[in-house]
Amino acid sequence: MKARVTVTLKNGVLDPQGKAIEGALGSLGFAGVGAVRQGKVFDIEIAENDRARAETALKAMCEQLLANTVIENYHIQVA
Amino acid sequence: MKARVTVTLKNGVLDPQGKAIEGALGSLGFAGVGAVRQGKVFDIEIAENDRARAETALKAMCEQLLANTVIENYHIQVA
Repeated sequence: MKARVTVTLKNGVLDPQGKAIEGALGSLGFAGVGAVRQGKVFDIEIAENDRARAETALKAMCEQLLANTVIENYHIQVA
Repeated sequence: MKARVTVTLKNGVLDPQGKAIEGALGSLGFAGVGAVRQGKVFDIEIAENDRARAETALKAMCEQLLANTVIENYHIQVA
């Protein structure tokens, strides 16, 4: 089973990397670019045929390793 | 208009970061974790009401800055 986990910064958390990209896009001549926020995406293959169990395992992975839940949100999509 | 750009490594390109996560998940006791690949996600606000023009602009941003098209694929989703 394939899954995609998206980890994004929570609202209100400063994102200097996103700000830098915003500035770079402006320098390249792209007008009208508002806020840019950068996050991470993980494509994970998991040997589990039960959807619910896969989601439970992925949630635990996010809590323990993939996301810093103090400042980040995560979203799990099982394909 | 809000858009999400997902940048992932092409198949066949080595992903040491993904491999490290794979190993870390194994060490944490998660069994059955197969390949892990890490990518990036950009949430971009763009001052453009026309969907097609927004997509064209985002495509140019990907080609010029957000993705290294030699080793990475990008996917644009306009909300």
